[in-house]
Amino acid sequence: MTDDRSSAFVPGHVTAFFSAHPDEVVHAAGSRGAGVTISDGVTVTVDPVAEPGETPTQTVNGESTTIEPVTLVLSKLDVDARVAIETDLPLGAGFGVSGAAALGTALAAADALEAGRSENDLIRTAHAAEIEAGTGLGDVVAQARGGIPIRLEPGAPGYGALDGVPATARIEYVTFGELSTESVLADDTADLSAAGERALTTVEADPTLETLMDASRTFAREAGLLVPPVAEAIDLVDDVGGEASMAMLGRTVFALGTGLSDAGYDPTVCRVHPGGSRVCGTDDTAE
Amino acid sequence: MTDDRSSAFVPGHVTAFFSAHPDEVVHAAGSRGAGVTISDGVTVTVDPVAEPGETPTQTVNGESTTIEPVTLVLSKLDVDARVAIETDLPLGAGFGVSGAAALGTALAAADALEAGRSENDLIRTAHAAEIEAGTGLGDVVAQARGGIPIRLEPGAPGYGALDGVPATARIEYVTFGELSTESVLADDTADLSAAGERALTTVEADPTLETLMDASRTFAREAGLLVPPVAEAIDLVDDVGGEASMAMLGRTVFALGTGLSDAGYDPTVCRVHPGGSRVCGTDDTAE
Repeated sequence: MTDDRSSAFVPGHVTAFFSAHPDEVVHAAGSRGAGVTISDGVTVTVDPVAEPGETPTQTVNGESTTIEPVTLVLSKLDVDARVAIETDLPLGAGFGVSGAAALGTALAAADALEAGRSENDLIRTAHAAEIEAGTGLGDVVAQARGGIPIRLEPGAPGYGALDGVPATARIEYVTFGELSTESVLADDTADLSAAGERALTTVEADPTLETLMDASRTFAREAGLLVPPVAEAIDLVDDVGGEASMAMLGRTVFALGTGLSDAGYDPTVCRVHPGGSRVCGTDDTAE
Repeated sequence: MTDDRSSAFVPGHVTAFFSAHPDEVVHAAGSRGAGVTISDGVTVTVDPVAEPGETPTQTVNGESTTIEPVTLVLSKLDVDARVAIETDLPLGAGFGVSGAAALGTALAAADALEAGRSENDLIRTAHAAEIEAGTGLGDVVAQARGGIPIRLEPGAPGYGALDGVPATARIEYVTFGELSTESVLADDTADLSAAGERALTTVEADPTLETLMDASRTFAREAGLLVPPVAEAIDLVDDVGGEASMAMLGRTVFALGTGLSDAGYDPTVCRVHPGGSRVCGTDDTAE
């Protein structure tokens, strides 16, 4: 460990609906849509490799692994570092962990090295890494903002445009397993994107959490993404008068308030995250 | 009290430097510059008046008062309400309390009434109220964002543009009294704005906290805003190797880390606020 290491926290992001917007300019590519950032997230600690012969490594909860967008961020920033990722969120289940890992790596690396890059610059770097890796389209810009982000226009700062739903809520979620973002995005997304555009129009006209949840359920149905355990949980929450939908893209159901508890599930409980991503700092700034 | 009341938290904002940009379009008017949002802030509770004959009131820390931007926000939203503002921040001392009160009122009122307005919409409303009241130019958009905001372009969402410094720090501050924003802005601001533009160019080229503090000190000197107790405190912090500057516009000194403590002052201690403004919710969302 050197004295230069720094860490950053990035909230998880559950996408409620989206439309895909590919573009040859990587910073302009992305998605439109809306979702909820949650207080469960990802903490990334970056420890620049100072000694010759030290090997850059990546770990997730202590296990050695490689997350492609993290590797790409380090490459774009020209940093050799040990990256330690800690998270309670399930991987591949629709919480934007890869985007959070990429953004957290960019923020912590820039702070550790006093790189003199602005937050927009670092968000662009992480967004580009996600797009190039094919692991996400809109998580990074949503996670940087926090709250309940509406992605009005696709892309990184300088291209995209964001708004938000002014609300908060207790959030519950259950996960039934992984769903590959890459495989869904590799299919023809024309019908999915048309459904996503309709959902966005609905939420822009009435930016409330209830309308967002309703638009998300309609999107999941129209886009043909519902799988049996997810559809069943959404129906059971509806039966008890709650609001639930599917996290895009994962076999995950999220609900407002006590919806999943009331329906008999044993969910993980968190909240809408009040802020966006943030540098947590080095030892000397953490006092 | 009705069941509809809601509250919102808005961080304080210390402006490090700025240039003034008047415009006939109120959403386009504002300032460019940079500053620091702090964990000490303003909590606004809005309780819509439901019964005929009830009188809308405003209180700050329990004392009856009227804050013009708050009155304007309620008028723009067409809401009659009791507004209770709680804050530990000193008024008129450069912490953006009027902007925070306006933004908090907009967010809490919209949540209480389920007004179906987006966050950008509410930020525009509060920004316009501040501009019309002449009480501030850039606090509202900075407070909505949080962190260490750089105001690249003036104005509310749809007009302005923001970036940020990716850092955190312990912040200390001492206040020697009030300074009227209105009176400074009523003077010829050409020299002040020229100094502010130079400071912004410096920080855009190297977006770090140290450069921001250095640019702020240069701005305060060039704009002729330094007053004796403020200038002395900044010099004493410099003597002990610390980083301090003046809050625009107040007789307030803020410092990174333990700068003011090390210089022998007894400062208030807070931190860079990790998020922006946020709805705290009603009783049913706060569980």
